[in-house]
Amino acid sequence: MKVVIIGAGNVATHLAKALYATNVQIVQVWSYHYSNAKLLADQVNATAIEDLTALDKTADICIISVKDDAIAEIAEQLIDFKGLIVHTSGSVSMDVFANSSSNYGVLYPLQTFSKDKELSFATIPLCVEASNETALQLVKQLASQLSTHVVEINSEKRKILHLAAVFACNFTNHFYALAEEVLAANQLDFDILRPLITETAAKVQHTLPLTVQTGPAIRNDEQTLKKHEELLLQQPQLLEIYKIVSESIKKTR
Amino acid sequence: MKVVIIGAGNVATHLAKALYATNVQIVQVWSYHYSNAKLLADQVNATAIEDLTALDKTADICIISVKDDAIAEIAEQLIDFKGLIVHTSGSVSMDVFANSSSNYGVLYPLQTFSKDKELSFATIPLCVEASNETALQLVKQLASQLSTHVVEINSEKRKILHLAAVFACNFTNHFYALAEEVLAANQLDFDILRPLITETAAKVQHTLPLTVQTGPAIRNDEQTLKKHEELLLQQPQLLEIYKIVSESIKKTR
Repeated sequence: MKVVIIGAGNVATHLAKALYATNVQIVQVWSYHYSNAKLLADQVNATAIEDLTALDKTADICIISVKDDAIAEIAEQLIDFKGLIVHTSGSVSMDVFANSSSNYGVLYPLQTFSKDKELSFATIPLCVEASNETALQLVKQLASQLSTHVVEINSEKRKILHLAAVFACNFTNHFYALAEEVLAANQLDFDILRPLITETAAKVQHTLPLTVQTGPAIRNDEQTLKKHEELLLQQPQLLEIYKIVSESIKKTR
Repeated sequence: MKVVIIGAGNVATHLAKALYATNVQIVQVWSYHYSNAKLLADQVNATAIEDLTALDKTADICIISVKDDAIAEIAEQLIDFKGLIVHTSGSVSMDVFANSSSNYGVLYPLQTFSKDKELSFATIPLCVEASNETALQLVKQLASQLSTHVVEINSEKRKILHLAAVFACNFTNHFYALAEEVLAANQLDFDILRPLITETAAKVQHTLPLTVQTGPAIRNDEQTLKKHEELLLQQPQLLEIYKIVSESIKKTR
């Protein structure tokens, strides 16, 4: 299988490297900045290209892994491409390709990627869909080289997954950051919270979060809630969030 | 070392079992409900007692691990106890014991505990303080039997740690629950989010959360933010929280 990669960001980099590791041939990498394309291409034994017109039209799959609002524009430049075109976005409909190709699909890895953090694709849920049965088989074949967790999900449900992921990942990380802010304001180090963060995530691996909620809000421990609010008087933004989230937790009692 | 345990909840249970596993002798367990005391006592080869007046006055340490607002009341009943008295709360000042004893302290495990979830104490940060140097040495000795991460923290800073833990653990778990709610409203299973949750926590084990923030808010991706808000129109509480947290993330850009 010959693959071309469009994009050289976090997702493109992890995906290209994971495919390369399973002996998929990455032939080309393109990115807005040639230097980024070169950086990734060199890691996966591919050629970096400066212009999309140089795209290898004989490749089997073209994976577009760029910013959501750039996908449509790139798709327009791929009308000559005969292989399968997929994007990796959580929130862009598959139909973004409808005017450019008849063989298209989506391969959305439900995971958070940072370039510097290694991770294994083996257990990442890969959400796939495609415009026709042949295309679906091909994207599934590609996906199952990477992960044991391949799920067929349509564009509408994928958008919901992406939204849920914002709550479970992006917002969660922001609360780690808010905790860091609370500590920093009092000359305390974030390091002491790390085992707690690990365990909080570990707990919901085999249970549902609603069943393991702990803390003053779920106990309706007014005394502690009040003490915490007093501690946050000098940080009005944190105080507002503390109150809103505590109220939200109380509603689940 | 002879220890008596007051309380039989999540923290008391984990602590008693961990101490028992390190060959500390647990002599007695008391709880508001005798049946709970009995349940725990049986697991650590101790005697369950029905009345606090039956407390073994020759024990070296009495660990009080009950609801925050019950600690003071229990302390009043321990004026005859000659050993070291400690509680395990994050938010109650050590001075709650000042009228009951001259040997007292705190042993606060900075972790989230659920009875059914096994966990190792070895890496849990144990925050200790005490009323005098001898007491401090004893509580440190006890703590270091359990964990390699023993930190001396005064009552004021401990309260800050507890507040930060609410953000990093309780609030985080609530966002897992909100994600579950988003999925459930669309007949999608929580299971698919679990690898993402694990990785989100893993990421901040070696970096600070501010540096690994991802998602539409930190990119100021107005299009995706708008799409998400539209998806939440039928869930006004989730919509409100989505907006507030996204705004909070944008401020960190």
